[in-house]
Parts: sequence; structure tokens; C-alpha cells
Amino acid sequence: MQQDLRSVEVDAESVIRSITPALDLTRHKGQAGKIAVIGGCREYTGAPYFAAISALKIGADLSHVFCTKDAAPVIKSYSPELIVHPVLEESYSVREEDKKIISSKVLAEVDKWMERFDCLVIGPGLGRDPFLLDCVSEIMRHARQTNVPIVIDGDGLFLVTNNIDLVSGYALAVLTPNVNEYKRLVEKVLSSEVNDLDATQQVLSLAKKIGGVTILKKGKSDLISDGDTVKSVSIYGSPRRCGGQGDILSGSVAVFLSWARQHIKAADSNSNLSCENPAVLGCIAGSAMMRKAASVAFSHKKRSTVTGDIIECLGKSLEDICPAT
Amino acid sequence: MQQDLRSVEVDAESVIRSITPALDLTRHKGQAGKIAVIGGCREYTGAPYFAAISALKIGADLSHVFCTKDAAPVIKSYSPELIVHPVLEESYSVREEDKKIISSKVLAEVDKWMERFDCLVIGPGLGRDPFLLDCVSEIMRHARQTNVPIVIDGDGLFLVTNNIDLVSGYALAVLTPNVNEYKRLVEKVLSSEVNDLDATQQVLSLAKKIGGVTILKKGKSDLISDGDTVKSVSIYGSPRRCGGQGDILSGSVAVFLSWARQHIKAADSNSNLSCENPAVLGCIAGSAMMRKAASVAFSHKKRSTVTGDIIECLGKSLEDICPAT
Repeated sequence: MQQDLRSVEVDAESVIRSITPALDLTRHKGQAGKIAVIGGCREYTGAPYFAAISALKIGADLSHVFCTKDAAPVIKSYSPELIVHPVLEESYSVREEDKKIISSKVLAEVDKWMERFDCLVIGPGLGRDPFLLDCVSEIMRHARQTNVPIVIDGDGLFLVTNNIDLVSGYALAVLTPNVNEYKRLVEKVLSSEVNDLDATQQVLSLAKKIGGVTILKKGKSDLISDGDTVKSVSIYGSPRRCGGQGDILSGSVAVFLSWARQHIKAADSNSNLSCENPAVLGCIAGSAMMRKAASVAFSHKKRSTVTGDIIECLGKSLEDICPAT
Repeated sequence: MQQDLRSVEVDAESVIRSITPALDLTRHKGQAGKIAVIGGCREYTGAPYFAAISALKIGADLSHVFCTKDAAPVIKSYSPELIVHPVLEESYSVREEDKKIISSKVLAEVDKWMERFDCLVIGPGLGRDPFLLDCVSEIMRHARQTNVPIVIDGDGLFLVTNNIDLVSGYALAVLTPNVNEYKRLVEKVLSSEVNDLDATQQVLSLAKKIGGVTILKKGKSDLISDGDTVKSVSIYGSPRRCGGQGDILSGSVAVFLSWARQHIKAADSNSNLSCENPAVLGCIAGSAMMRKAASVAFSHKKRSTVTGDIIECLGKSLEDICPAT
């Protein structure tokens, strides 16, 4: 099957309008989404903050971060809006003989909350410590058992690329690779090189090979596939490539995926969506939202645009597409 | 050779326009520059933050800080935009018998990243702890082996003035001394007093004596020499002398130096630059940018202008000179 890129360009604004829930005064805390980011270690603290705060700025009600003890005070200091749990551990702070018991404790801390979450974002600023990644693998298995959707980015993709079984066949998993992360995925899963000339077919094959997970391949156009269909999002955008934009995207996809799931559950047969996979819909909406906010921020700040500037434009961008009242 | 100061004033705005890369949607993260600041200790945390955030605001894609373990949480908390590595150690936290092994560990942590950086800024808030400075000397040697440019300011200049071999003959090294730092350099290297009447000749001799490093002598006019040529930048400026402005300058020079290097590598014979040394071009651009942002900030904030106000004016100042689209 050869597809022309233009043929799959999707009306992302209409998807956003369809899945974004109406706001009314009878709703209560939590109904618009409870998101958790698993990430943040001694080295990285900005990435989990960006993902978690973006979820709130899109409209989630509660946004949690599960990170290491070192990272927690810093992430807390970025914003009082987030609930930050200092529960993860890195090898350097754990003795060999304690690993098993500490691993169970970490898992128990996250499990206490698991069923309340509408989506996890796994990977922003996670680092690559082997013990920590082992714990996160377990968290992913539990999320899957509980049917909690997971959006995987950054070091989470490093983990998954080397342990594809963690997500294989899980329809509520989303992978959001950038150019380099996509290259490693393709090499590992398809045992081939990236083919830019037939990108549409390749992302479809990749998603199918991983058993129908959804892949959001970031690039000049974002390509989204779950192995059945391929959509592209090319509207808006900014030429600025400052680090952290991927974290906004993963936090946004998590919220929209949750909303799409709610929408599909509640919708009667009149739902006018061309696709019924909430993971794909979440990716389409998240991609378009990120691109619009980035383009608005760039129009004001130009070369000096940083990730925080883009986050400040999320609210207005969503309002332009889908007014709250 | 006697030179008149007016004869070397350079068209800095035209240099900025020549070396600043065009932005377009096909670029990906990192191409506009990856900068690292080596600095930040128990005592000083503002300086490395100012240098690193300035690099981002000029338009770099990624900005890292390598600092001591005490300094890291504070620098992280200033901004989630920076990647802060808590890897340096000061004497008070290291036993004599552990120094060798800890020194190797510090070096290994920085080396993991070295080849990815387009430029290092060495010195902002570094402090003068002997063990820490020994480690930084090794980092400088490795940067040089890897052909990574280095901009040296603050306590980095203290280190280099007493160990001139660290930079001697390295064409990708830039020193950015203020009045006092320049005095110590001249005394040490030229064994003479500062001669303000023949400043142009003296900075030329100094740069030549250090084997063609580039010196940016800060003052009412900034003088820039690599031992072959002397340029002066006198446009704009602010009478406000709050601490931290030198850190903006070093971060800015790092980005422009990286861009100048890219530009020269890519340029065909039509390049209209009057000078082909990326270190000199980076200094010219950084000096003018710093001066313009300071003058814009001063016009708004007057006596209350602080360094953060100037940083907020970097983006608009660059946009005025060299519009992004």
C-alpha cells in the first residue's frame, strides 16, 4: 500500500472540538482528567515539569509527578500546581541487597494511585539508571493490567525500544519518538533503516508490528499510526527547536487521549469522528495543539522562544479552536 | 603598528546578520546550538544561570550547566529550561586519598557529553577551590583535544591567567576579561602595566603572545583581538553596572561563535565577512547584542535595571537587528 502524505492530512481542529469536553458548573474535580508523569531524576527536572504543567494548562484537573527523592524538591519549586511524589530511587542510593524490597515499595506507592489516573506519561527526564528503569517497567506492567493508557517519550522510549514486550499489543500505549528515537525503534523492531520516501507505509508497518500501539512520529509533519490507519498533522508550527517541546506534546496527548476515551464511551451513534481509536485521536489533538501554541509563541518571542513561552500559549490556542463557553 | 580606535570600529550588526542562521521548519533539535556552562558552586549560583539562560534566549536549542552538587538544585530551580548536572566537587567534600578517583569521575561525567557541545563557557560562578579548578583544567584540556570552542570568564580567567598553557595556541579559545581581569592578564603574560593610551596595540600583543586566542577586553568600548586584527564595538550600551552582565556576554559569545563556525563551514566564496575567525566574529556579535539589550533594558528600568531585565531584552534586540522571518 502506497499512500500520499497529503491524502492522510486530518482535520485536527475538528477532532479537538469533538473530543474536548463541555465545561459546566455541575462537574466536579477530576472529571476533566487526572494525569501522572513518571519521570524526573537527579539529572533531569525540567522535562517532567513541562509535561505535567502542560496537562493542567490544556485543562486536566489534577497533574501528578512521580520522581526520585532528589528531583522532587526542585520540581515542586517550579510550581505549587503539581502534586509531586518523591518515590523513585536510583542505583546510587540503593544497596544491592535492598533492591527487591525497595522495588516493591516504589511499586506500592504508585499502585495506591494507579486506578485514579486517566493516563500516565512515562519518560520525561527519567534518566537511564538500570534500577530505576526496572521499577518503571513494573509500573508499565501494572498500568497495562489496570487498563490505564500510557504515553511514552524520552528515556521511556529508550526503555521500551529495548523491551518492546512492555507495550507490544497494548492498544492504549502511545509512543512519541523524535527523529533519533524513531530511527532506533525502526532499526530494532523492523530491522531496517528509516525510509523517508515512504514514511507513511513505514510508520504503519511499525505500529502494526508492535501490535497496534499508536506511534506519533514527530517531524516537519507529524505522522500518526496505530497499524490500521495513518494520519498526518501539518498545520501551524514553529521553526524553533529548543529542548522541552516534546514534553509539552506528551502531556497534551495524555489529556486529549483521556478526553477522547470519555467521548467515545459517552457518544451515541451520532459521533462524527472518522476514527474511533482514542490513542490516535489524542495524538492528532495533541500534535495540533502543540504546533499551534508553538507558532503563537514564536510569533511573539521569535528566536528567544523557550518551552515555558509555548506552555503559556496553550490555553489561548485551545480557546481559539474550541471556546470554553 | 599604531592603530586609531576609530579605524577598527566594526559593523557589528552586519556581522550578526551574516552569522545568525536562518530558521526553517526542516531543522531539528540541536542544530541551532548546544552550549554548556562549567560553573556554579556552593557560593555562586546566579552567574552560571545567567550565562546558560542567555544562550537559550539568543536562540541556542539546548543549554547545560555542570556545577557542584550544592549548586545544582538552586540553579535547576531558577529555570526548568536548563539541564543541570551536579557533578563538580569542592575540596571540603573530598578526602585527600579520594581526590584522584573523584577527579576521574568528574571528568568522565563531562566527557560523556563533550562531543555534543558546540561551545563551553568556563568560569561563571566557578569559585576558586583548588581541587575544583584542577578538575576544570582537565575539562579544558579535553575540550581542546575534541576541538570544542571555549569561552573563559570570571574564575575561569583566574585559572587561565595562572596557567596560560591551558589556552595558549588554541584558536578556539576566547577570554573575556573585565578591567581587573585584563590587568592581571597583561601583568602575567606581557610583564607590563596596562597601557590605556595604546590599548589597541596592547590587546593585539597580548592575543599574539597567547598564541592567537581571541581576547574580548570589556570597557567603554569593547576591544577584540586574535593577534592578527583588532576590532572595536562601541554601539549602544548602558551606564548601569550591575553584576552578572559579563555572564550574559559569555553565554551570548558562545552561541554566536558556534553560529559563526557553522556559517564559515557552510559558506561559499560569496561570504562577505571581513574576518574569517569565528572566535572574533562571535565576540563582535556577542558584544553588540549584550550592549543593545542593556541599552533597551536601561531605557525601561533606569537605575533599577538588573541582569534579569537585560536577559529579557535579548530576544527583541536580536529580532530588531536580524528578524527571524
